[in-house]
Amino acid sequence: MSDANPTACLLVIGNEVLSGRTQDANIRFLAQGLGEIGMPLREVRVIPDVPETIIATVNEVRAKFDHVFTTGGIGPTHDDITSECIAAAFGVPWEAHPEAWARMEASYKPGEFNAARQRMATMPRGATLINNAISVAPGFTIGNVHVMAGVPRIMQAMWVELAPTLKGGQPIISRAVHALRVSEGLIADGLSAIQARYPALDLGSYPYYRPTGNGVSIVAKGTDATSAEAAIAEVTDLMLTLGVDPVQGEPAA
Amino acid sequence: MSDANPTACLLVIGNEVLSGRTQDANIRFLAQGLGEIGMPLREVRVIPDVPETIIATVNEVRAKFDHVFTTGGIGPTHDDITSECIAAAFGVPWEAHPEAWARMEASYKPGEFNAARQRMATMPRGATLINNAISVAPGFTIGNVHVMAGVPRIMQAMWVELAPTLKGGQPIISRAVHALRVSEGLIADGLSAIQARYPALDLGSYPYYRPTGNGVSIVAKGTDATSAEAAIAEVTDLMLTLGVDPVQGEPAA
Repeated sequence: MSDANPTACLLVIGNEVLSGRTQDANIRFLAQGLGEIGMPLREVRVIPDVPETIIATVNEVRAKFDHVFTTGGIGPTHDDITSECIAAAFGVPWEAHPEAWARMEASYKPGEFNAARQRMATMPRGATLINNAISVAPGFTIGNVHVMAGVPRIMQAMWVELAPTLKGGQPIISRAVHALRVSEGLIADGLSAIQARYPALDLGSYPYYRPTGNGVSIVAKGTDATSAEAAIAEVTDLMLTLGVDPVQGEPAA
Repeated sequence: MSDANPTACLLVIGNEVLSGRTQDANIRFLAQGLGEIGMPLREVRVIPDVPETIIATVNEVRAKFDHVFTTGGIGPTHDDITSECIAAAFGVPWEAHPEAWARMEASYKPGEFNAARQRMATMPRGATLINNAISVAPGFTIGNVHVMAGVPRIMQAMWVELAPTLKGGQPIISRAVHALRVSEGLIADGLSAIQARYPALDLGSYPYYRPTGNGVSIVAKGTDATSAEAAIAEVTDLMLTLGVDPVQGEPAA
């Protein structure tokens, strides 16, 4: 993968993923979206609703990656502590954000914009808003940290607003070929030699198990479509020498 | 959550999750399995197939948590580097494991146990095997690190073998109540007071959005069923004071 691309880290904040209550649906969505804007996701951490853990993790990863995205913990309840932890991580006050406050107050009937809901309009000083077209309460960006909702539908709506504001690099593209009745153990040596000839690509080998038969997908990822296509052409030739029938692309889901 | 429970960290190793190619299916399975044996999952990291990253992460988290579980990167291809990285992290030789070697050699036709496949029988010195009832090539444990396959079906079969060998604590149990037409913002204050009365429980608030209506689930997790039930009874009363109809348990999927 090109070193010229800015890097991304995702923090999934919430006990519900760590307890197995909730199947995460945000990692894959953001991984794909970040690839499209040329800002490859290099690490994900799922962490609990524990202030010291959130603060320490945010400070570690915002120094290590070009951009950090968080999902979860920005609602009105006691377990929603992401926003105040981000303020603590940056060492800035956590205070009413006038624009967020105005938007939220306008969205409730008189008297219903209570203390719990006001917490959702309380943000680290210096935060800029990420619009929430679904349920009003905004996300925000501070420094290189982008704070989004955990509910997938709301997170996705925030991503639509956020993505155009980010400066990515060359989009990450992928090319693939797959074949039934080829095992990884037979293709491994040839594949390793091809990977060595294309060091700027990530060449991945993924076995699949289907009612219609088992096989292997080989996926080349990188920023240069020409070399990805050349590498996949070499993999295709390798498969032909093994006597199987390569099919371009990945198998249908 | 009780401090008496041993803690777990999961490392999901593989570019395919970070690129968004693959929807992770291992986090939730292991989160639930670890909860059942009373070894709560406290952190997950998804990291790429990069040796320095794997080695540094393994060494960081094996010092920080009681047990570390890894999935992915133990196949025969060039991108399968977990096993040799674990050896490097522990500072031990990476060498043929006689029992793994014997099992694998016996599973192939003569001449087919090639160099790539022999890598799957090569392990950190001192590793003990985790049986693989699906596809022979074993996982392994070294120190407090448990190395499993990434393919969910194989990982799950390894977990069945591994779990009975682990010394957990009190199982993590959960109780829940939910209601339609209650918003988090209305229930937040009362919920916060209940959480304060049950500091050993994790009380989580999770909005849901269904065609049949929107609502909120409140989930109490901990090792003591009696206090989880008492907390949920208080939440139920709280919901009743808000004029909604609480339903015990979580909403049907």
